[in-house]
Amino acid sequence: MKAEDRFVERLRALLPDGGAVLGPGDDAALVRSVEGLLAATTDLLVEGVDFLSGEDPERLGRRAAAVNLSDLAAMGALPEFFLLSIGFPPEKGEDFPLAIARGAIARAGEFGAHLVGGDLSAAPQTVISVALWGRPAGAPLARSGASPGDRVYVSGHPGHASAGLRLARAGGARDEDRILRDAFHDPVPRVPLGAELARHGLASAAIDVSDGLGIDAARLARASGVRLVLDQDALPVSRALRSFASRAGLDPLDLVLGGGDDYELLFTVPPAAQERLERHAGAFGVPVTRIGRAEEGAGAVLSNDGALRDIADFGHDHLEPPR
Amino acid sequence: MKAEDRFVERLRALLPDGGAVLGPGDDAALVRSVEGLLAATTDLLVEGVDFLSGEDPERLGRRAAAVNLSDLAAMGALPEFFLLSIGFPPEKGEDFPLAIARGAIARAGEFGAHLVGGDLSAAPQTVISVALWGRPAGAPLARSGASPGDRVYVSGHPGHASAGLRLARAGGARDEDRILRDAFHDPVPRVPLGAELARHGLASAAIDVSDGLGIDAARLARASGVRLVLDQDALPVSRALRSFASRAGLDPLDLVLGGGDDYELLFTVPPAAQERLERHAGAFGVPVTRIGRAEEGAGAVLSNDGALRDIADFGHDHLEPPR
Repeated sequence: MKAEDRFVERLRALLPDGGAVLGPGDDAALVRSVEGLLAATTDLLVEGVDFLSGEDPERLGRRAAAVNLSDLAAMGALPEFFLLSIGFPPEKGEDFPLAIARGAIARAGEFGAHLVGGDLSAAPQTVISVALWGRPAGAPLARSGASPGDRVYVSGHPGHASAGLRLARAGGARDEDRILRDAFHDPVPRVPLGAELARHGLASAAIDVSDGLGIDAARLARASGVRLVLDQDALPVSRALRSFASRAGLDPLDLVLGGGDDYELLFTVPPAAQERLERHAGAFGVPVTRIGRAEEGAGAVLSNDGALRDIADFGHDHLEPPR
Repeated sequence: MKAEDRFVERLRALLPDGGAVLGPGDDAALVRSVEGLLAATTDLLVEGVDFLSGEDPERLGRRAAAVNLSDLAAMGALPEFFLLSIGFPPEKGEDFPLAIARGAIARAGEFGAHLVGGDLSAAPQTVISVALWGRPAGAPLARSGASPGDRVYVSGHPGHASAGLRLARAGGARDEDRILRDAFHDPVPRVPLGAELARHGLASAAIDVSDGLGIDAARLARASGVRLVLDQDALPVSRALRSFASRAGLDPLDLVLGGGDDYELLFTVPPAAQERLERHAGAFGVPVTRIGRAEEGAGAVLSNDGALRDIADFGHDHLEPPR
């Protein structure tokens, strides 16, 4: 039996029952389809660009699943199935991709998604590709639905993951920084939040903050044909982030606006839905903060005592060299 | 606007109307789902392993689509939509991934599949990942359905692509070799054949010959719990392949059995369906040849005047170094 087939057998042993009609090991997976809308997404993670060399493979698998789960969360969709492809240097041995798969299966499983297939290839460095699909829990949350007058909200604490990445690069492990390191190593996709927003029609538009609050706010603004004005005083900045920024000689605002890898949800709420939003907040699984508003116009700006600053370039472009 | 967003805008301009409810540019694609079974597959292509450096990007895109279309063909499924991720050295410029996308969109479009989303990342060398969905045209063609007594068929001419790869490496371009070079550069997925087999219940099992006739025959045999006996005299060996093998000092049989990258279909036909198979052959879009039979037992062997030879290791393991 070839290495690839052996791998598939070991992988199948990791999978819980259920999910696919025909799972890994055939030419394609077969799943049962129910009438309606399917939401589908894919993300490619490249060693040295999207993750550090030498990261724990199981954690990488968790993150590869999480970034895709986050895309479905931002669509208000509940994940169902995924495909996983791994390219890796063969000298790492077969346990390496298996650990990646184990991490991805575990993380996706927490949100109801099953692995149904994939591909393996030798590669000079590790690359991980996930394709994930699921079903909107209500009217899908496109990026394009915001209107002037809508309120802008964000979940959690953008900037934590970026601080965590810097900490991971620097090494060392202070206890007070754990929340930052975890945000980078093991981000939590906001699936319950996205599903609640879609199920109850609470949001007019949503995007996940994968590249930076500034860039992603500008993307939502462009898709919706509005301007997003974020209020500097309203941005959620945690004590942990302030402490790290102070030690590192950084402006915490730069981390919040330009950090990337946060996988929080940025979403807009029509004024009429705001009260209902507050009522449902207990089911979101994460705090949400009102940070601004949508206006007529274009772009994304930060307002500080009336002074406006363009933040559309705050964040990470995946086609630029690694940060 | 960031390079990634600019890319998505240029990509959207390439897409024909229809297909997705919401296509590239949001967090996830939305497609309409009809009740039934979905078939899903993914393949990862890595520069230097799965394709040569310096290959034409549009042709790479066509091939990336084709290998996935071939997986659905082997399942008897009709392709519907796909996601495309590309990692590439940023210094190649944005036209490079766009050419890959153009090729993939064109090739997939010939078989009815629409691009609905994807991802871009910087990478030290080019990697292409496609995830493709579709719907079985009839009872799906799993690898596991062959029974003793079934006839074994193969489409087209396994070995051509492997000869074409050697020719591409060596450079030069003799006219008589064109059929071999095309088989490598621009393989034709056997979608109509797979769909006809499924639609009319003609095959008990199928696999696409991606890694080599020997390896893939052994895979089908293992999944079905049978032994496949291929008849050496029955293997389709073209004049072009014989001529190339003779010039290159190779045994054409080694190319036919161990070539890989052919994307032909290997399938089994119950005796009762054989006559119907011959009747439908006109709709397959490719000649099919009866090359052997399934028996009680295990493995894949080649029979030559009664002498049997194990061929289960004839082919390419994606976890081994490039050929």
